[in-house]
Amino acid sequence: MISVIDALQTVLNASKRLSPLTVPLHDALGKVLAQDVRAPDPHPPYAASVKDGYAVVAADGPGEYPVVAESRAGDDALGVTLSPGTVAYVTTGGPIPDGADAVVQVEDTEIVNDVSDGTKRVRILVQTTKGNDIRPVGFDIEKDAVVLTSGERLGIRDSNRAMLLAAAVQHQCKVLDFGIAKDDKEYQGKILDEAFASGIHILLTSGGVSMGDKDFMKPLLEKRGKVHFDKVCIKPGKPFTFAEIDLQSTDSKILAFGLPGNPASSIVCFHLFVVPAIRHLAGWTNPHHLRVQARLCQPIKTDPVRPEYHRASVIWTDNDGTGNPGFVAVSTGHQVSSRLLSMKSANALLEFPATGTTISARTAVSAIIISDIRPMACDENHKSSDSALALPGI
Amino acid sequence: MISVIDALQTVLNASKRLSPLTVPLHDALGKVLAQDVRAPDPHPPYAASVKDGYAVVAADGPGEYPVVAESRAGDDALGVTLSPGTVAYVTTGGPIPDGADAVVQVEDTEIVNDVSDGTKRVRILVQTTKGNDIRPVGFDIEKDAVVLTSGERLGIRDSNRAMLLAAAVQHQCKVLDFGIAKDDKEYQGKILDEAFASGIHILLTSGGVSMGDKDFMKPLLEKRGKVHFDKVCIKPGKPFTFAEIDLQSTDSKILAFGLPGNPASSIVCFHLFVVPAIRHLAGWTNPHHLRVQARLCQPIKTDPVRPEYHRASVIWTDNDGTGNPGFVAVSTGHQVSSRLLSMKSANALLEFPATGTTISARTAVSAIIISDIRPMACDENHKSSDSALALPGI
Ligand SMILES: [Mg+2]
Ligand SMILES: [Mg+2]
Repeated sequence: MISVIDALQTVLNASKRLSPLTVPLHDALGKVLAQDVRAPDPHPPYAASVKDGYAVVAADGPGEYPVVAESRAGDDALGVTLSPGTVAYVTTGGPIPDGADAVVQVEDTEIVNDVSDGTKRVRILVQTTKGNDIRPVGFDIEKDAVVLTSGERLGIRDSNRAMLLAAAVQHQCKVLDFGIAKDDKEYQGKILDEAFASGIHILLTSGGVSMGDKDFMKPLLEKRGKVHFDKVCIKPGKPFTFAEIDLQSTDSKILAFGLPGNPASSIVCFHLFVVPAIRHLAGWTNPHHLRVQARLCQPIKTDPVRPEYHRASVIWTDNDGTGNPGFVAVSTGHQVSSRLLSMKSANALLEFPATGTTISARTAVSAIIISDIRPMACDENHKSSDSALALPGI
Repeated sequence: MISVIDALQTVLNASKRLSPLTVPLHDALGKVLAQDVRAPDPHPPYAASVKDGYAVVAADGPGEYPVVAESRAGDDALGVTLSPGTVAYVTTGGPIPDGADAVVQVEDTEIVNDVSDGTKRVRILVQTTKGNDIRPVGFDIEKDAVVLTSGERLGIRDSNRAMLLAAAVQHQCKVLDFGIAKDDKEYQGKILDEAFASGIHILLTSGGVSMGDKDFMKPLLEKRGKVHFDKVCIKPGKPFTFAEIDLQSTDSKILAFGLPGNPASSIVCFHLFVVPAIRHLAGWTNPHHLRVQARLCQPIKTDPVRPEYHRASVIWTDNDGTGNPGFVAVSTGHQVSSRLLSMKSANALLEFPATGTTISARTAVSAIIISDIRPMACDENHKSSDSALALPGI
């Protein structure tokens, strides 16, 4: 009789990798990439704002300034040049005009209403520093960087909408897609009413919930139901909005999740709040995620104000640094909320309390498991016995 | 700003369980059961054989006996009564005739060819004991036993064929179903040829690979390709057969897995051998399952001859018995290979070497993860801090 190990080896020896196929993008989900994919362009393609606020010259300091341009996500302010003593309104993702070197978030400003000459003016309340809340060109992805590696299973993460649709389907939801709503309050209200009348139990929207002047979700939901909260003390995901809509017509209730527009914020809020709600509606005995303890592979600085949900790859190892088998957690990189690649191979969210301190490597932290825990790639496995994941004993 | 924990509680408070729906069986997969389901009948409904062999009166002992009846899976021998001094041929799952009280496996018998009067005779080579290789009525499931609990997510495990189809789909395979092949060698060969001509990469069959007189898979595969092995040193799953079929016509190759007919054997072999092959074909960098260490919640006796893959539910706990967080493993019950319920909530296969010793509770063993690791149900969570999973410290 053949042994299990020899039987498996015989099977794998007889298994030849199938030839690569070209498939349309919507058929690629769950398939394995046959070759590396490199970024044709840097991302962002221009220096972009991380917040809704004002692009300024940092050296100008606090004071009252004329607003000489507006830059929304898109490329409205490409080609605009800012002189010292002036500022430009910017929304999250919008390009920073030439000449500006920092962004002051809208919360740290005041509109100056009393202006005689008809120009818009704003009061900057804080001293900022060069580079504040600006993502430079290629900050997320450098041109020609390998963004997907051959052998990797493909998920959707290039677009908030496709990503949320796929995530909802993975969680057994039937999905209706109401498309992209343009930046018009009346139009967005019409889409909401259509959605609410369609028999759904859950509404997901993405974007339109922060401090930008085109962020209409909260007032639109307030007009239609009860907004339970519009800001959560969490990083990323602060502007996450949740409302309950009671339909008189059908005696049914809709949970409306106004997810933030930043892709990583959006998917973190989806996992933390929407997934348990889906499971609860579906009758799961325990709607909560699995939490395990994992040891950090690198020191991580926590936020001083908001508890952080840090995207990480959690892996089981023979030696977690203590000499015993256990989970280790590898951060998936920069945690700036726009950084889609930070969800690349994340199967966990590490929960960090808001202490503002540095948690040292090898500390055991709580990890929320949001997708499959896979064994390491064979070559990683090999590396781990050498150095990469071999943490010094404690 | 609301805290994460309060935000989640608000969302769950607003989430009301949806009303139960009646859906057809094929739509039930992945849905959550609204009420307990009890067994309307015991399983097996009659005393059934665990092996291909001969139903005997144990007290008769070794010797030559006339074969007075044949009982195959189905109910061929219901109503037959065996007198001492006679035996009946039985296949796995077939009913034990009244009067018989043990089964002797075919490997421990010899056909007597040289008979003058035309009756079939067999030589029983070993002394057996009362009850040997017989599953009594209700052994797997007693009448009125709760077989599915409300709040549980539904999988398919009532039928080998449906279970394998669902498992293959879950592993991203496109599936062609060639149906149930009747116990006829020529007919089964025709179905195989049809399957091989249909463009498949992998063939799965279930049953027809052990020592029964209607077990045709091995000779049929031998005629069509290379049988790499027809028996693996494993429990359950010994008669697992693997062959490689080279199609001259299309220059392509088919992996043919002859899985055992017993449901639990079949699904264990599927996970151990077919899943890595699927992943390898699909281009995964590492086709192997995740293995973790888990501490046993009960002592388990291992097989002295074959390494055992023991179905278990692996759960993360705050205290795995050592005072540290970690995985614990709860056996899903009797491990008799016909016992479908042993896969009920199994998310892992524990790997036991063939030592024939008892592994004590709290020992850390290797666990192959075959499906999601879920958090405990809320009430189980509570129990664990009291007793059920609270292992004494070591
Ligand atoms: Mg916005
Ligand atoms: Mg059989």
